[in-house]
Amino acid sequence: MDKDRWKTGITRINKGEIRVRGYSIVEMMGKLSFSEAVFLILKGELPSREESEMMRAILVSSIDHGVTPPSVLSTRNVISAGNPLNAAVAAGVLTIGDVHGGAIERCAKILQEWGKRPDEASIIAKELVSDFIYKRRRIPGFGHRLHETDPRTIKLFQIAQDLNFAKRHIQLAQAVEEELSRSLGRKLPINVDGAIAAVISDMGFDWRLGKGFFIISRVAGLVAHAYEEMTREKPMRRLGDLNFEYDGPGEREIPKK
Amino acid sequence: MDKDRWKTGITRINKGEIRVRGYSIVEMMGKLSFSEAVFLILKGELPSREESEMMRAILVSSIDHGVTPPSVLSTRNVISAGNPLNAAVAAGVLTIGDVHGGAIERCAKILQEWGKRPDEASIIAKELVSDFIYKRRRIPGFGHRLHETDPRTIKLFQIAQDLNFAKRHIQLAQAVEEELSRSLGRKLPINVDGAIAAVISDMGFDWRLGKGFFIISRVAGLVAHAYEEMTREKPMRRLGDLNFEYDGPGEREIPKK
Amino acid sequence: MDKDRWKTGITRINKGEIRVRGYSIVEMMGKLSFSEAVFLILKGELPSREESEMMRAILVSSIDHGVTPPSVLSTRNVISAGNPLNAAVAAGVLTIGDVHGGAIERCAKILQEWGKRPDEASIIAKELVSDFIYKRRRIPGFGHRLHETDPRTIKLFQIAQDLNFAKRHIQLAQAVEEELSRSLGRKLPINVDGAIAAVISDMGFDWRLGKGFFIISRVAGLVAHAYEEMTREKPMRRLGDLNFEYDGPGEREIPKK
Amino acid sequence: MDKDRWKTGITRINKGEIRVRGYSIVEMMGKLSFSEAVFLILKGELPSREESEMMRAILVSSIDHGVTPPSVLSTRNVISAGNPLNAAVAAGVLTIGDVHGGAIERCAKILQEWGKRPDEASIIAKELVSDFIYKRRRIPGFGHRLHETDPRTIKLFQIAQDLNFAKRHIQLAQAVEEELSRSLGRKLPINVDGAIAAVISDMGFDWRLGKGFFIISRVAGLVAHAYEEMTREKPMRRLGDLNFEYDGPGEREIPKK
Repeated sequence: MDKDRWKTGITRINKGEIRVRGYSIVEMMGKLSFSEAVFLILKGELPSREESEMMRAILVSSIDHGVTPPSVLSTRNVISAGNPLNAAVAAGVLTIGDVHGGAIERCAKILQEWGKRPDEASIIAKELVSDFIYKRRRIPGFGHRLHETDPRTIKLFQIAQDLNFAKRHIQLAQAVEEELSRSLGRKLPINVDGAIAAVISDMGFDWRLGKGFFIISRVAGLVAHAYEEMTREKPMRRLGDLNFEYDGPGEREIPKK
Repeated sequence: MDKDRWKTGITRINKGEIRVRGYSIVEMMGKLSFSEAVFLILKGELPSREESEMMRAILVSSIDHGVTPPSVLSTRNVISAGNPLNAAVAAGVLTIGDVHGGAIERCAKILQEWGKRPDEASIIAKELVSDFIYKRRRIPGFGHRLHETDPRTIKLFQIAQDLNFAKRHIQLAQAVEEELSRSLGRKLPINVDGAIAAVISDMGFDWRLGKGFFIISRVAGLVAHAYEEMTREKPMRRLGDLNFEYDGPGEREIPKK
Repeated sequence: MDKDRWKTGITRINKGEIRVRGYSIVEMMGKLSFSEAVFLILKGELPSREESEMMRAILVSSIDHGVTPPSVLSTRNVISAGNPLNAAVAAGVLTIGDVHGGAIERCAKILQEWGKRPDEASIIAKELVSDFIYKRRRIPGFGHRLHETDPRTIKLFQIAQDLNFAKRHIQLAQAVEEELSRSLGRKLPINVDGAIAAVISDMGFDWRLGKGFFIISRVAGLVAHAYEEMTREKPMRRLGDLNFEYDGPGEREIPKK
Repeated sequence: MDKDRWKTGITRINKGEIRVRGYSIVEMMGKLSFSEAVFLILKGELPSREESEMMRAILVSSIDHGVTPPSVLSTRNVISAGNPLNAAVAAGVLTIGDVHGGAIERCAKILQEWGKRPDEASIIAKELVSDFIYKRRRIPGFGHRLHETDPRTIKLFQIAQDLNFAKRHIQLAQAVEEELSRSLGRKLPINVDGAIAAVISDMGFDWRLGKGFFIISRVAGLVAHAYEEMTREKPMRRLGDLNFEYDGPGEREIPKK
C-alpha cells in the first residue's frame, strides 16, 4: 500500500491544529500578509522584507487586465451558460496557456538556464540575443501587443531598485533588453511577464512555478468578472449572427451505400 | 452589434495605462497589499483599515488544508497524468463545490436573508435554528468533520473583536452557535466557512461571491500541491490494485441478433 | 480502510481482460455500434433494436451546432491561448450548463415526475401547463431562439414513430406541446433538448443523466472546433478593441492613510 | 472588425437547417451511425465502409478501463464535492494528458513522420528502433503496465486484417513491434494507444487529433462513472487518514520582525 500513500511537505493537519510549512495557521493569520503566506507556501520559507515587498507588487500587478484576455472570455462564457462560480473561474485558469501568462514560465527558464553561466550579464545577454536571432525565435517576456512601455514593468523594477533587490536575473533581463534594442535597432521592452520572470528568478523560484504567480494573482480578477457577468448580463450570451461566417463545403447529399 | 459588446466596470485598459476600479495599477503596486487589491476588485472600493485586516486574515486562513481535500486530489491527478500547471489548478478550482468550500456561499445567504429582519440577533437566531431543526436541514457553516473547535474560526473572530469590527452578521452567526448548542444539547461550533461567511457579510459582500474568497485563497495551496506532485512524484499515479472492487454483473455474452 | 475502497459496477479489469457491464470488450468491439456501447455503459444492459436506433439518432443529432454556442467559444479560446486539445475540450464541456444543454436534464425531470401520475397524457399535460403558467415559469425543452420548428425534433419523433417506439414520456411531451399551443395561442414547439429528454425518459434513463447524452455527442464537435482553431487561426485570439467598453468609475487616486 | 470574425468550415446553421460539412443533420440522423458522424465531423468527408468499421471499433475499444485511471478519479472527485455532471466530466477530460491517452498523439506523430520515408516498413522500423534505443527514449504506444498482450490491440488489428484495411502506418507499427522484440530480446507489444495511432494514421488523420479519439470514446465512460458516484456514494469522499503522511518541516514560530 505504501506506493499509494500520499506524501506532502506542505501542510500538516491534526485535530485543532493546522501548520503550513511548520508554522501555525493561527500565528500566520495574526502576523503574515497574504502575499507573505503565498511566498511561504510556494517556497517553504518566510520571505525577507525585500522579497515580501516584491511578492506583493507582483501579485497586485497582474490582478486584472480588462475584459479582452481569453481567460476572462472563458470565465464569462461559463457563467453565462448557467454554471457555478467555481466552474467559471476554473475555465479561466484553464485558459491561461503558453501564449497567455505562459511567457513568465518560458522567460524564467531562459533567464535561469543562461544565468548559470559564469560570465557577466552583458556578455551573456549578447550571446543569448544573437542565439535567438540566429534561430529566428522570439524571446518570451519581451514586447507587448498594446503597451509600448508596460507601466507595470517600470514600477516593478523601480520597486526592486528602491529595495536594492535586483540580482543576477533582473540584471540579465535588463541586459537582454538593451542588447535587443541594439541588435534590432528598435525597442522591444521587457513586458510584465518578463519582469515577473526576472523577479521570481531572483527570489530563487523554479521556472516551472512561473505560471503559478500569474494564476494566483489573476484568479481575483476572474472572480470579479464572473460576478459582474452573473449580476449584470442575461444568461446565454452568444456571438451575434454577423460575427461569424461558414466557409466549408456547400450542400450535398449522403450517397446510397 | 451593440448586444454583442462586452461592458465592464472593473478595469480600463489604454495604451500605457491600466486602471482598476478607477485606480492606476502603478499606484496600487506601490501602495496596496494584495488583500487590499482583492477587496478593491471585488467590492469596487478600497477597504477601511479594519476591512483590510479582516480580508488579510480570511485569505491567509484558507490557503491550504493538507493533501486530503478533493480539490488537491484533482489537482495532483491532473499533473500526474501529464498536463500543464494551469490545467491542474483549474481542476482543483473545479472541484470546489457545494460540499467543499460551498458552505461559505450557503451560510452567507442564510445570514444575509435572516439578517434583514428587524429583530435582535438572539431572537432571529432562535427562529432560524428552530426553522432548520423543524425542516430537518443542517445549517451550513456549523460543525466540522475533524476540528471540534476550528482554530481558524477562533482567530478570525478574535481579530474581529480586537478591531471592533463585528457587526450584525457576525453577531447573528454567534447567536446561532449558542442557540444550536442550547437546542441540540451539544456544541456544533461555527466552522471556518461559517466564520468567513459572517465576516464577508459584515463587509457588505453579496453571498453569491462566497466561494470566491475560498478560491482566491486556496489557489495558492493548489499551486503548491501541483508543484510538489510535479517535482516529487512519478507520473501517472494510480489507485493501487487493492483499493477498489468490481461489484457489477458477472461474465456474459452478447446474444445473437 | 474499507471506507476508502472504490466500488464500481461498470467495468472489471483483469490481466488481458476487460469486461464492461459483464461483456468482453473484445466481443463488444466485434458486435456493437458505438451508440450501443454507450447505451450499455450508461444503462447497464444492451439496448433493444428500437433503443439502439433512437440512441444513434440522438447522438448524431447533437454532434454540432456551429461556432456560436458558448461551449465552442470556450474550447476555441483555450486552444487559442496555447493549451493542449484535452484542456480545450474540457473547457467546452465545462461550459455546457443549465442554459446550454441543461434543458434536457430539467425537461426529463418534469416529464418523469409528472409522468408518474396515473392519468392520461392529455390530462396531465393540461395540469402541467396550467401549473407552469400560474407560476410564471418556462417549461424547459420548449421553444428555440433560432429554429421555429427544430428539424432535429421532427426527425427524432419521426424515427420514434417509424419504430413504434414512442411511450409515455414522448406522448406526454407531445401533449404538452399541443396544450402550450392552445393555452398561449401560439406555437412553442418542442426543441431538440425536449425531444431528447422525452426519448431518454422512454428508454428508462434517470433525468440526472440528461446532460450526459448531450455531452457525449457534442464532444465530437468540440474536438473538431479545437482542431480547426489550432490549424486555421493564429494563437491568442482576442476580442477586438471596438467590441467592449468600460463603464466603471473614472480616474481617482488612492488617498493617504 | 474582420479580424474578429469567426470562420468555420464545420457546420452551417440557418433557420430550420443545420448542415455538417455540407450534409443535412436530418439526413445524417436517418442514415449515419454515430461513429460515421464522428468521422465526418473530424475528417470533413464520409468514411468508406472499411473506415466506418475501424472507427466504430476504435470508439468502442476505449469506452472505459475501470475505476483506476486518473481521469475517473478526477471525475468522481468533482461530483463528490457537489458539482454538476458537466463539471465532473470536464475534470475527467482535463486529466487525459501526456501519460494518460496522450500516447496516441505521440505515437501517431512518430508513425506519420517516419512513415514518409520512401523505404519499406521493416527498414524504417530498424532505423526508428535503433534511433530511440540510442537516444534512450521509450517509443510511445508500445508496452502496457497491466496487459502483457492488450486484447483490444489484437482485436483492432484482426478487424483491420479482415477488412484488408491495413496500410503503411499499421504495417510500420507492426514492424516496430517485431524490431523491438528482436532488439530488446523481449516482447514490448503494441498497446491500444499504439494501435489506435496506427489506424487513425492509415485513415489519414493528423496526429494532432490523436487524443481526440480517446476523448470522444472515454467521455461515455466518464459520464457513467459520474452517475455511479452521484447515485451510490455519499458526498465529499476523502482520502482516509492512514493514506497520507506529512514529511515537511517540524513545528516552528514566525520570528519577530
